[in-house]
Amino acid sequence: MKNDIQIAQENEMLPIVNVAETLGLVEDDLKQYGKYKAKLDWNKIDSLKNESDGKLILVTAISPTPAGEGKSTMTVGLGDALSKIGKKTMIALREPSMGPTMGMKGGAAGGGYAQVQPMEEINLHFTGDMHAITTTNNALAAFIDNHIQQGNELNIDPRRITWKRVLDINDRALRNIVIGLGGATNGVPREDGFDITVASEIMAILCLATSLENLKKRLGDIVIGYNMNRKPVTVRDLQMEGALTLLLKDALEPNLVQTLYHTPAFVHGGPFANIAHGCNSVIATKTALKLADYVITEAGFGADLGAEKFLDIKTPVLEKTPDAVVMVATIRSLKMHGGAEMASLKEVEDVEAVKAGFVNLQKHIENMQRYGIPVVVGINQFVHDTPAELTALQRLCDEINIPCILASTWENGPDGGIELAEAVVDACEQSNQFQPLYIAEDTSIQEKISKIVKEIYGGSDVQYTNKAQNQMRQFARNGWGNFPVCMAKTQYSLSDDPKKLARPEGFTITIREFVPKIGAGFIVALTGDILTMPGLPKKPAALNMDVLEDGTVTGLF
Amino acid sequence: MKNDIQIAQENEMLPIVNVAETLGLVEDDLKQYGKYKAKLDWNKIDSLKNESDGKLILVTAISPTPAGEGKSTMTVGLGDALSKIGKKTMIALREPSMGPTMGMKGGAAGGGYAQVQPMEEINLHFTGDMHAITTTNNALAAFIDNHIQQGNELNIDPRRITWKRVLDINDRALRNIVIGLGGATNGVPREDGFDITVASEIMAILCLATSLENLKKRLGDIVIGYNMNRKPVTVRDLQMEGALTLLLKDALEPNLVQTLYHTPAFVHGGPFANIAHGCNSVIATKTALKLADYVITEAGFGADLGAEKFLDIKTPVLEKTPDAVVMVATIRSLKMHGGAEMASLKEVEDVEAVKAGFVNLQKHIENMQRYGIPVVVGINQFVHDTPAELTALQRLCDEINIPCILASTWENGPDGGIELAEAVVDACEQSNQFQPLYIAEDTSIQEKISKIVKEIYGGSDVQYTNKAQNQMRQFARNGWGNFPVCMAKTQYSLSDDPKKLARPEGFTITIREFVPKIGAGFIVALTGDILTMPGLPKKPAALNMDVLEDGTVTGLF
Repeated sequence: MKNDIQIAQENEMLPIVNVAETLGLVEDDLKQYGKYKAKLDWNKIDSLKNESDGKLILVTAISPTPAGEGKSTMTVGLGDALSKIGKKTMIALREPSMGPTMGMKGGAAGGGYAQVQPMEEINLHFTGDMHAITTTNNALAAFIDNHIQQGNELNIDPRRITWKRVLDINDRALRNIVIGLGGATNGVPREDGFDITVASEIMAILCLATSLENLKKRLGDIVIGYNMNRKPVTVRDLQMEGALTLLLKDALEPNLVQTLYHTPAFVHGGPFANIAHGCNSVIATKTALKLADYVITEAGFGADLGAEKFLDIKTPVLEKTPDAVVMVATIRSLKMHGGAEMASLKEVEDVEAVKAGFVNLQKHIENMQRYGIPVVVGINQFVHDTPAELTALQRLCDEINIPCILASTWENGPDGGIELAEAVVDACEQSNQFQPLYIAEDTSIQEKISKIVKEIYGGSDVQYTNKAQNQMRQFARNGWGNFPVCMAKTQYSLSDDPKKLARPEGFTITIREFVPKIGAGFIVALTGDILTMPGLPKKPAALNMDVLEDGTVTGLF
Repeated sequence: MKNDIQIAQENEMLPIVNVAETLGLVEDDLKQYGKYKAKLDWNKIDSLKNESDGKLILVTAISPTPAGEGKSTMTVGLGDALSKIGKKTMIALREPSMGPTMGMKGGAAGGGYAQVQPMEEINLHFTGDMHAITTTNNALAAFIDNHIQQGNELNIDPRRITWKRVLDINDRALRNIVIGLGGATNGVPREDGFDITVASEIMAILCLATSLENLKKRLGDIVIGYNMNRKPVTVRDLQMEGALTLLLKDALEPNLVQTLYHTPAFVHGGPFANIAHGCNSVIATKTALKLADYVITEAGFGADLGAEKFLDIKTPVLEKTPDAVVMVATIRSLKMHGGAEMASLKEVEDVEAVKAGFVNLQKHIENMQRYGIPVVVGINQFVHDTPAELTALQRLCDEINIPCILASTWENGPDGGIELAEAVVDACEQSNQFQPLYIAEDTSIQEKISKIVKEIYGGSDVQYTNKAQNQMRQFARNGWGNFPVCMAKTQYSLSDDPKKLARPEGFTITIREFVPKIGAGFIVALTGDILTMPGLPKKPAALNMDVLEDGTVTGLF
């Protein structure tokens, strides 16, 4: 069996200029980064704004197993299959973070015969967007500490600075640190910490910005902490929004690459799916809609998190709702929700577990139907799935009138996704009346959370800690009640308890604390401890990585 | 008067492909980064190795004023002038660090009508080399702390880790920090600190590496600290050299840009000139020598630091010695060395001060002659220089038979450097018998330092602190005596006292401490406190930076 990098290296890429040509783009519309990557020039993006939109297909999933459901593989393979059946298609994916690549996870550019390319570069420095975000985030941090050091005109409370530094590396030793030691010339001592770059509000902002001007406005709105009177201090107060915009100017332009089968793909932006909204950039998705007739995109984690945030946070900015949702599931995950032992998921046929676990899939389907969007279930097929298990699932979907299509894009590339592509094309033709869950401006934070918990998660109640209640009062005073809410919750359950699989009911969600992301334009509600700086395992993936004398990369999966 | 960015923005760049064509390169030899920047592909670099070398011209300076002598402006202008008189010329410059750009200094891509382009990008993210170095450096740091966290098989002493983290930003609050706080899952608490990226040993390594294999060997050799038995621990012990090489693969390829007058320039690598060797990359210089008949390069600070390191550290790796040295001086700096008040340097004619300050210039000239290299003095002309001052200097140079040429490249571009270019061409034709100061392998650390202090600085003795003496004994045990020495000394004086201007004599240099850079392949000797993480001023330059709706950059100088 070949691994991802072997498949990728055996594949011949087209020059990115040729890929761009299939979208009607010319060389001057691109800023090439080597022969196989390019940024689309801002002038071209701007010139497209009055073009009509193609169809938008959102790929999401049921509550996943720890191994994931293969959403990216499905997204890439579906894009290739749509191309193969003659549709002008683009894929719009998130870009991977390097930290996890060096640690546990390996790459994040799809897998098998459903990959975007060049995977060695997409998984590492790519076009430098992550580095630009790291730099912008840390420039702001340095300017905050310098402001205090130089007299603290804004009266910033060093104990209430919420802006943290970031690095795109898994580094647990930087989670909690003390800075500014060493005497008067070396800053003011205070507690601080580093997050991973994708957790930076700058990443969320980049992904929601609609133009350079809008980017600058959002950057100016960032609240970096509070002054001694507990009033919020913004980037605008520090007069830093111009310089920060300058540092992000190139990163705002979406990155064009190709799949193994030369379908054009934007890979741009990759915010966390818990403390942020977990979708690729608005600019990439919007531009793809102008360039192609079908655009496949993806949201992080299960549909209760990624799709809900796509629909309630990204959609209002994108000004385009999905024409169809592909709900990815695996027999493995259904069996897990149905009570089968984790260790036996691949080994033992268990039709009853598939049937019992179906309720999780069904709830996610109902949720998407609640928004008014047609759903197609895409089964990411594995060799160990048995015919009886697949038939059982098929019947259950038939009963609720949802097309359920087997796909094997990982193994077979586009050929493994033709039937799914055809079902998706059909779904896009259905009538589609989008029903938002809430109108952010007309609903209080408490009401928004209540709607998400009751209508999407299927819970019965929401509790707030004292801290969260105090914060809601403070936010109301600051005028922050109008923002959508971004839930930070486990992806393994519809509830906030990762052990409650299938379709839990009657549960209460506890909101522990809020994190205002005023630049991004949402309020994060934390339901538990969220790790914003991962650690490395005992034998990190990087120990196997190498580059040979001739430049060939090895050990990157 | 137009500022640098205005001049740059009014200038029309050629597509970098066209610039490359003048060197006999084709599009496939390049990895384009947008239309005006490219990396030269490793395969092409490798294919050039048997080509003969062009002439190498090293631009250096007398002990500078705090404002600098304009070496970069002279380097760029001289390159343009050589092009203009029909010579096939390349420039090989260091790449600027973003940190200082955001702080005090503004850009570092030349100035006036002697700039490399696109200056907005060269001064900011450029092609991402700095970011790759930051990432590589910090990945190593994370892996060190993770090794300790995961059981510390190598028995690393957390108190003796010498590998620091880095960021490309001026951030004094990160100079001295405590990491690993917050309990057992968050690492092992220890003292740490951040340097600025250009101070990383990774930068020095990148600039001295001759191939991917050599890069990997050097990275493996890095000593990250000591174990509980005080034995050095290397990157090879941590098995990280493959992954680190992978992270630097693209950064190793030199960046091709152009001057305002379309002379091709490599801008690649920029190590500190005190704790490192202060020259651009060996690969860029070597490749330029294969592509052009005349290559102009530059070394940091005055000739006692930059040129000495160029000749004793870089030259043995480059395997090519300079054919001529251009010694840059200003009337302003000569007057400063001659005892004139700083405040009056521009205002008051002072021929006597010029004459008195000449001894500094003369010592630097003698030093270059000691290596056997022909010298041309290039006077970076300012409007306030008087004819009497210039004539006085001319006469003093005539007396020692050194061509002294006025140049006004900042104001007049190539036309301001024609005479200098012609003098340089003549100097390159002189017989040239290079005499190294020492052979690193045959000389002890103490002897090497003694030679530098006595023959180059003109001092009479060297003192060592107890710490430095202990270190020398330890280094001898570790087999590190064979490396060249990299002196970290003030650039303002030939001595280690910045107040001793002109040509001090009879002084003693005190070596406070050594820093072994085993991957880079030199031993740093510290003669005083060297700041490896700058701070920001009260009103940082970034506060004026902005980008307009159409993408135009403002406030970057």
